[in-house]
Formats: sequence, C-alpha cells, structure tokens
Amino acid sequence: MNNDLPALHAVILAGGSGSRFWPLSREMNPKQMLTIFGGISLIARAVHRIRPYTADDAVHVVTGEALFDELRNHLIAQEDLAHLTIDYMVEPMGRNTAAAVALAAAVLVRRDQDAIMMMLPSDHLLEDGEVWRNTIESAMRLASAGQMVTIGLKPSRPETGYGYIHAGEEIAGSAVGGVRGHAVAAFIEKPDLETAKRFVADGGYLWNSGMLVARASVILEELRRAGDAARTPESADGRRIAEVAEDMAALDRAEWPTDEGRALYGSMPSVPFDKAALEVSANVAVVPTELDWSDVGSLLSIEKLGDADARGNVLVGRAYDVDSSGTLVYSPDRLVATLGLADAVVVDSADATLVAAKDRVQDVRLIVDMLKKAGAEEVSTSRSSLRPWGSWTLLMKGEGFQIKSIDVSAGKRLSVQSHNHRSEHWIVISGEARVMRDDDEMVLKANESVYLPAGAVHRLENAGPVPLKVIEVAVGEYLGEDDIVRYSDDYGR
Amino acid sequence: MNNDLPALHAVILAGGSGSRFWPLSREMNPKQMLTIFGGISLIARAVHRIRPYTADDAVHVVTGEALFDELRNHLIAQEDLAHLTIDYMVEPMGRNTAAAVALAAAVLVRRDQDAIMMMLPSDHLLEDGEVWRNTIESAMRLASAGQMVTIGLKPSRPETGYGYIHAGEEIAGSAVGGVRGHAVAAFIEKPDLETAKRFVADGGYLWNSGMLVARASVILEELRRAGDAARTPESADGRRIAEVAEDMAALDRAEWPTDEGRALYGSMPSVPFDKAALEVSANVAVVPTELDWSDVGSLLSIEKLGDADARGNVLVGRAYDVDSSGTLVYSPDRLVATLGLADAVVVDSADATLVAAKDRVQDVRLIVDMLKKAGAEEVSTSRSSLRPWGSWTLLMKGEGFQIKSIDVSAGKRLSVQSHNHRSEHWIVISGEARVMRDDDEMVLKANESVYLPAGAVHRLENAGPVPLKVIEVAVGEYLGEDDIVRYSDDYGR
Repeated sequence: MNNDLPALHAVILAGGSGSRFWPLSREMNPKQMLTIFGGISLIARAVHRIRPYTADDAVHVVTGEALFDELRNHLIAQEDLAHLTIDYMVEPMGRNTAAAVALAAAVLVRRDQDAIMMMLPSDHLLEDGEVWRNTIESAMRLASAGQMVTIGLKPSRPETGYGYIHAGEEIAGSAVGGVRGHAVAAFIEKPDLETAKRFVADGGYLWNSGMLVARASVILEELRRAGDAARTPESADGRRIAEVAEDMAALDRAEWPTDEGRALYGSMPSVPFDKAALEVSANVAVVPTELDWSDVGSLLSIEKLGDADARGNVLVGRAYDVDSSGTLVYSPDRLVATLGLADAVVVDSADATLVAAKDRVQDVRLIVDMLKKAGAEEVSTSRSSLRPWGSWTLLMKGEGFQIKSIDVSAGKRLSVQSHNHRSEHWIVISGEARVMRDDDEMVLKANESVYLPAGAVHRLENAGPVPLKVIEVAVGEYLGEDDIVRYSDDYGR
Repeated sequence: MNNDLPALHAVILAGGSGSRFWPLSREMNPKQMLTIFGGISLIARAVHRIRPYTADDAVHVVTGEALFDELRNHLIAQEDLAHLTIDYMVEPMGRNTAAAVALAAAVLVRRDQDAIMMMLPSDHLLEDGEVWRNTIESAMRLASAGQMVTIGLKPSRPETGYGYIHAGEEIAGSAVGGVRGHAVAAFIEKPDLETAKRFVADGGYLWNSGMLVARASVILEELRRAGDAARTPESADGRRIAEVAEDMAALDRAEWPTDEGRALYGSMPSVPFDKAALEVSANVAVVPTELDWSDVGSLLSIEKLGDADARGNVLVGRAYDVDSSGTLVYSPDRLVATLGLADAVVVDSADATLVAAKDRVQDVRLIVDMLKKAGAEEVSTSRSSLRPWGSWTLLMKGEGFQIKSIDVSAGKRLSVQSHNHRSEHWIVISGEARVMRDDDEMVLKANESVYLPAGAVHRLENAGPVPLKVIEVAVGEYLGEDDIVRYSDDYGR
C-alpha cells in the first residue's frame, strides 16, 4: 500500500436482518453470520478481506442494539481476528444507510480529519487477491483526492436484480496495476433483461457493489451539498442527516441508547445513501474491477454449493431425489427426500423447513412476516449459537427443562456465572472439563457429571488440549437466556 | 351375538412394511402402528373392532420375525387390551397372503375343528357400531354354513385404486338387521374411471375390503380344491399351500424360526389368497355393508386430518403457507413453511422430511428403495418407540453418546437390565423415579440424577402416581439397542 495515503478505516454495515435467507438466517443469526459458504461467515470474510489495508483498531462495525451481542460473540470467536479491536457503532434504531454512513463518517472525522473510510456490506461474497488490492489502492488515491469512489464490478451475466453504473472517462493518475478509476456517467436502476444484455455486451456498464471509498469529511460535505441543492426529494435531507450524525458523534457512546440518543437518532430521515448523496453528486468516481462477486441475495445462492445433476437439480447435504427437475435441496443435517418436484426449493434447518416454488424464493420475507405475526420463535433464534469460547446447540426444549450440547474450544472458558431459576446437570462427553462450583473446583473426564443447583456460582473451562463436549440438562420453571448473572468474563461481556 | 354360532377367531394380518407411508412409517414402525389418526394405532383399532366378538384368547396376529418384538411392545402398551392373550403367529419369512391365511387356518383347525376365522387387515380405518355388528353376524351365519364370506363396502366415490366385487343374488336366511349376504357374481380388478363411475351408479358393485370370514377347515379345503382344479396359474398351488401350512401347524412354534421351519415355510408358493382360492371358488359370498372405510393407502389419507382452505390446501400441525394451492402439509412438531407451491405434499417427521408432487405420492416406495440402497437408517427406525411401560424418544446421537427422553407410565417399570458397552446418566425431569442399581435402591425426584456405570444391573420404575420423565445420556463406544442383558421383565421379554 502506498504509504503517502491517509489511514483507511473499514466501516462494515451489519444491520441487515437477512429475512430473505430464512430458515437459515434468523433475526439473531442473520445472513452475515451464516457459515454455509465454506465454513466462514460472510461478515468474517468481510473483515478478513479488508484488514490487510487497515490498522488493528480501524475496523468499525455498524449494527443495531438487538444484534450487537450476537455479532460481537460471533466475531470474538474468530481466532484469527482476535488481535483486532473492533469498534461497534450501535445505532439506537435502523434509519437506512444514509444515516449509518453519516454516523460512521462523523465519528471518524472527529478522530482523524483526514480519515478515508471504506463502506463494506457484511453479507456479500467477493474474491480476494491482487486485483482486490489494486482496486482498493486505486479507489484510495481517488478518495484521497476528494472524490466519493464506488467499486463497480464487470458483469458476468445480464443480471436484472442489480443496479448498474455507467462508467465515463478514465481519470488520469488513478491506475494501479491495470485497475483505474473512471468518472460516473450515470447510475442505472435494475434494468430489464434486454437492457441488461446490452449492458454486458457494451462493457462500459458495471454492477453497483455497494462498496464505497471516501474521506469521512467528504461524505459529510457531499451530504450537505446534496441537501442544499435538493435535486431530488430523497436528497433534500442531506444537510440534516450530516448534522444529526455530527450531533450523535459528539455524544458519549453511552448516551446513544438513552432516551436522548434515541430521540436524536430517531429524527434521522430514513433514506439510502445512494439516493441521499451518491447519485446526485458531481464528485463521484467508479473503479471498475473484475472480481467474482455475489450479493448472496436469495436462497438460490446456495446453488453455488453443489453441482447440478442431469435434470438440473442441485442437492446439498443429506438430500435424496427421485424424478425431480430444476430443484434445489439444502439439508446439511436432516434427511430430505424429494419426489417428482419441478423447480422447487427445499431448505432445511434443525427446527424449520422451507419449501418454495423456485420463482418465489425472493418472497420468503412473506413467510417471515407471517411467522412473526404468529409469534413463532423460529424467526428470531436458531438452534445453534457461536460464542467467544465455542458454541452451543439446543437439542430439546420441554416443559420445565431444556437440553443443550456445549462445545468449548481448547484453552477457552465460559464466564463465571449463576442462574436464579434453573439448575444444571453437566455430563462430559469428550475432552476434559475444569468446573468451578462455589468454593469447589474439580476436573471431569468423559462420562463424568456434575450438578449445579440454582444460585451456585460456576464456570466451565476446557482443561485439556482437545475440544470439550458437554451435555447440559437444565431444569427449572424459567429457562430464558437472560437468566444469567455474570461475575467475570474473559470476553468483557 | 347368536350363541348358536361357533367361536370366532380374529386373525389380524400385520406383516406389511408400510413403505408407502414413509417418512411416518418405518420398517420397525410400519403403517399399522401409526397413531396419527386419532391417537390410536390402526392395529389397536383393528383389535378393538373385533374383540367384542371373540374370546380373550382368540385374537391372533400374523407377522414377521423382524417386526414381532416391536408389535408386541406396541400392543402390550395398549392399556385396554391388556387382558387379552394375543397369539402371535410369527412367519419365518413373508410368503404373501395365501400362505399367511393358510397358516392361520391350519393352526386354528388343530385347536377347534369348527373354528370360524375372520381375516382382518391391520392397517385400515373402519367405522364401528351397529352396522358392523350386523355385518359380522351375517357373515358368520354364512361362514358357519360353509361359505367363504367377503365383506364388500358400498362405494362412496368412483375409486380406481380398489378392486370391486359384483354382488349376485341374495342368500336366504343371511339377513341380520338389514344386512344380508349375496352370492358373488364376479371379482373385478381396479377399474378405469368411467367403469368405476358406472359401478357407483349401478349400486351392485362393492369395494373389496380384504376382510374375509370362513371356517378354518373350509379355507384349507377350498385351497386344495382350487389347486386341484387349477383354473388359473395362481390357483394351481392351492393344495401345496394347504399342505405346507398343515405341516407348519404340526410343528412346535419354537421350530418355526429354525432352519427346518424356515425351509418348510420358504417352500410356500407366494400368491395372494384372493388369487389362490377366493376368485376361483364357487363357494364364496359377499356381505355388502355401508361403513366409512379407508385402506389408508397413501400419504394423501392424511388429508382426513384437516380441513382444506380456500385454495384447497390442507395444513396439519405447525404448517404455515403463503400462496400455495392444492397442497398437503403434515408437520406435527417441527415448523414447515410453504410458499407458492401447487399440488405438493410435504410430510415432516423428527428426522426426515418428504416433499413430493401430489400425483407421485404412490411412488414413495421408490424413495424408500433409494434410501435402503444408501444405507440410510431413517428407513428402518423412527425417533420414537412405544414400549409396554411407556415410550422413549431419541433426541441426539453423536460420536460416543446418545440422548433419549424416557417416559414411564404410572405404575410401570422397565426390565432389570445391564449394558456391556455403555454407561447411563439419568436426570429426572418430572415425576418420581425408583432406581435399582446393583445392591442399591433409591428414589429420585425432579432435578435429581443418578449414574449407572457399564455393567451395573439396574431398573427404572415410576414410583409416583403421575407420569415420570427422565433424560438419559448414554456414553460409550457402542450404543446399539441390542446391548441389553435382561434379568427380569414384567412383560416377559
């Protein structure tokens, strides 16, 4: 990286609920946390992708209050990101991307007047490597010179689901290893198929990736300018957005979730940043690049995980088919059998299964809405949860009891904690556990167990060099995750 | 019941594997044991239906070696059938219905030369009540007089999936409360739709229910006669079938599963009884009756369990739908969501889900065949199993451990047993358990636990007046159900 350039701050937008990926995604386990693509979550991939270009304390994640804990637990659990000090900007409520981008810009500009920030979606797949490095450096040069720089991807197919950017003239001095910046001739909404085909053939049209590089100060300035010009209804609030963001940034973080902070942020107009500033700005460039990319926009993205058979079926996991065609089945654990289906999608998870017509998968939010109304817990939580120390999986929940499988990584331990309303029975299945229980400490091997009465202050620790697996049977009238008193925690929770 | 008539023996044919009901049915939990229709299994219903007309020791169940244990466990668990001494005729292998009927007849004729037997399928639904009583009595009169008597059901729709019986002239003296016997004009194979419509309009055509009443001696005689006449290839072996059946019946039951018994029964020609004798006999009558009946022939029978919505969907259980039509969803426990499907069937169970085009459900055996080839255990066993003392459900099976939920009915206890390869941890969730462990005996209340090391002789008993629920975590290298040494058992196992 060229050392003359200012510091780069990564701002990862991670507020999305990912309801389009239900039943794999849940409110508390949204798309960006899914590990189905190669075992690493999309948000961890996003951090990995940008961290060679940032300082260890220059990765910022913008998210909401509901998701913050889960997201932090999730990212702490990534061994190779442990050295980062991730800054979580927790919005009191979601107010669309203009608010989130402005908030991040206002926070960063107070820290470093020259800061360059790169906005990154948390839930996309993107190829890494030399072209990516050149793309970032080219974008930083242009951003350093005062432009807002979008990353445009050369389309590999006439996709009608994306917005396009029409690249204009090349910008001198922006070339890095064959990647070079262009002026933006136009932003174009999702085209029809004929138009999309023409775009691909032309070569000058690019997919709008949602990635943006700019000085933090320029972002706020361009929002103000757009607001003052008010060329469109959606850009008329730009000044107000910049000002509320600066007011928020001036508050102590602890004040964000207070009534005052909530009222202030709640006064933000809710518009996409593209509409509020980017598309009406004269000060915008695009860096066209050729990278394998997907916005993982629907459950059909799962088709990447398998090869189609002769009848066009993609079967991933424990899926068996007789005589179907054009059908996608994803069932990593349970057995799913399909018979004579045409163009269907079956997505299975531990506690819920979706069966949809293929041309309706983009409407899975209608299912999510219906389930929310019905109060089905399967929209909010999933059966498994990644923790800083490992993970747990809920095996069964019944009246007055629940059973979990708990996996603790080598060298890790849970917090010192107690529960008011439930007792716990732990049975070690494999590995070695060190258990603290009030004033006792004991080491348990496989096939040994311990009882933790309600109120007992306890801690579970992996005492050995291999993963520890424990079955926990909790008994009590109230079994909610919030019945936990923490006394000490390796992860500052 | 008319006391002049000879004793009636019920012979329930329970050998079917019920693969057409997968994933609800499994090899070890076939259709006749399913409780989805009103909470009582089809075979228990069959026993209930006939027991007012038989002695307590005159109910016979013909089944195979693989299923015998499960079936006996299942029927012992039916409280209100506990007073019956059910006679299990365990065929060394399945040889179609002519063999099974002949075997039962040969066994009964040795016990009582005059015995009348009624063959009943174990896996049908049939209305009970006065018409049923009259039907049996009318059939018994004709059977007593030496005829083979089939039960014919007045068709309620032009069903093309059943065989029909064309009723001939009324038989004098057979009327009981409006039900009366007829000669059989013809047996007719499954008709096409036009023909079926004509049959329904005509009124003289009846569904062949598969139920048959006859003297045991007449059945053997008619088989011989059919064999000697040899009017069709399928009836030519009648004499041989009767003779092998008599040879089997002459053996001690303990010899049936020996090499000798297997060789003998294995020499049985494999033909349906209808083809071997009934359809070529001149000595056959039909009792037409008007009862609500279903052979529960395919998963579509589940539609009975719910009402169709405005788009013709039937949703049973935790099923949610958006914009589907003509679709059947059965998901008693897990959540299943459907979106935009047309004429599909989704059947969910704890460990497997089937999704089929509605017009292909009769081909679900193709799925079962595929799963067998793949060695999937989901074709043979289900997650839950009814026991004489209650039931158990497998919650999780992992490397070196498995977790079960065990429910013990009030007043019941498991056998005294030990395991060579696994230890068990029991945690009482609700109720009160008396636990024997080698020389100890203890009473455990909710939230108390006990450890049973491999080799320990132990027994679990419900010590209280309410159901007992225990979570069992078994740990060991080998966890098969066959690692059980029984020392004493209330159920003679």
